[in-house]
Amino acid sequence: MVTETQKEKARQFRQMHATGAPILVLGNAWDAASACILEQVGFRAIGTTSSGVAAVLGYRDGEQISRAMLLEVVERMARVINCPLSADIEAGFGGTLDEVLSTVRAVIEAGAVGINIEESVGRAPVDVAAHVERLKAIRELARSMDIELVINSWIGLFLRPDGDPSSHIKEAVARAQAYFEAGADCVFPIGLRDTNVIERLAREISGPINVIAGPAMPAIPELERLGVARVSLASGAMRAVLAHLRAIGRELLESGTYGTMEGMLSVGEMNGLF
Amino acid sequence: MVTETQKEKARQFRQMHATGAPILVLGNAWDAASACILEQVGFRAIGTTSSGVAAVLGYRDGEQISRAMLLEVVERMARVINCPLSADIEAGFGGTLDEVLSTVRAVIEAGAVGINIEESVGRAPVDVAAHVERLKAIRELARSMDIELVINSWIGLFLRPDGDPSSHIKEAVARAQAYFEAGADCVFPIGLRDTNVIERLAREISGPINVIAGPAMPAIPELERLGVARVSLASGAMRAVLAHLRAIGRELLESGTYGTMEGMLSVGEMNGLF
Repeated sequence: MVTETQKEKARQFRQMHATGAPILVLGNAWDAASACILEQVGFRAIGTTSSGVAAVLGYRDGEQISRAMLLEVVERMARVINCPLSADIEAGFGGTLDEVLSTVRAVIEAGAVGINIEESVGRAPVDVAAHVERLKAIRELARSMDIELVINSWIGLFLRPDGDPSSHIKEAVARAQAYFEAGADCVFPIGLRDTNVIERLAREISGPINVIAGPAMPAIPELERLGVARVSLASGAMRAVLAHLRAIGRELLESGTYGTMEGMLSVGEMNGLF
Repeated sequence: MVTETQKEKARQFRQMHATGAPILVLGNAWDAASACILEQVGFRAIGTTSSGVAAVLGYRDGEQISRAMLLEVVERMARVINCPLSADIEAGFGGTLDEVLSTVRAVIEAGAVGINIEESVGRAPVDVAAHVERLKAIRELARSMDIELVINSWIGLFLRPDGDPSSHIKEAVARAQAYFEAGADCVFPIGLRDTNVIERLAREISGPINVIAGPAMPAIPELERLGVARVSLASGAMRAVLAHLRAIGRELLESGTYGTMEGMLSVGEMNGLF
């Protein structure tokens, strides 16, 4: 059963992608505590980071965790935040369309109001027509559950190590068009680095695009100026806090001091998250 | 079934508490990723932080999580590290001695080779004789499982907000003696801040003592000089990384830049943890 509160969150989340809305900065979290901190700081929506969720459970990225483990994390995050939560379901945690749909249903039931989904099931090569059918089926499922699920679909072309990224623009624009028509709310041409390519995609794609923000990328106001509708951090914040933990550990072992721990949350602040 | 590898880890962990050994600095972690990072940096043993484990699951400290949730986290941490892991089992996650023993058995089966245990079951007032019986029963259970479980027992006197800490020294020394005789390997007079009290306890207690390290405490070499055998961080590192995440979030929302993310682990480094 999807509650009215969850339905309203889905509507709000979808509105954040509307034409003319300010750029949406998604806070990517990996557990309940990180989700709470990011919501408290002011992020309007939280996303999971698939590699971060895998790492806290002790696994590599790429559906090495089970669907049940993903659902557990999504549920725990959704339980403690008030803002919309989008779940990265990778390639759908299943070998068939029915299994992918079960995953989508389960993450909605776990409290998510949005999903990130890759373009192919498992390790299969991308089949645009099959992905269109998948997106249509997901949209239909969401409709049957009476929720305006926000679907953010990968466009994986730019992850290819070969060739000039600008050579993929035409194909990316065509895929985006097909995915929007099939029910996607946002497309995610993952792997972009080149400002010119980002700008061209933002201009030529007929709907919101999601780009990863972080070091080596333009600052968020610049991404907004280029026409990007939504940025996410992927595992960036997770990797940054792990580096900070490494620095804390090194200082403790090398000098036995606590400079890198200064400014830490008080015990009351941590307990006060929940 | 306890494997030979786990038994050997328990012996190694116990040796780290031996008279004359260098001070043991326990890295307190809250999930598989943090445990791996701390082991990689060089911590010789990892402990769980009960409040950190609760926080990543979305709960406050104090046995708000279920025993099953604790076990899940312990198992996931033990699976990915090679060094000894000590589990904070709070007051034992049970209302009776049998239930506490079930918890101890389960955390050993989940891979832990040490435990932290509070002095009373649930919220009951401390009954030293009852705690002595509990420690004896835990030691007997470990013996029956053929593992040299390292038992670190709380001495909670110094958490009391009232009175002069030095007035509790005599009682703390007596409790420590009783706990060592019952089978504890280390005692944990939690809540210490005063250097003189730490020094007196280290001198007067006839076995290893554990003190919490962190800002507002003397540096670790000074704690070693005072006679402390083992330091742990409790939730300190966790609270420090949450503060770092807060800083990252603020920078992203306020200026849209990534200075606080600099130095982050690469994607390869994060996946390479496992």
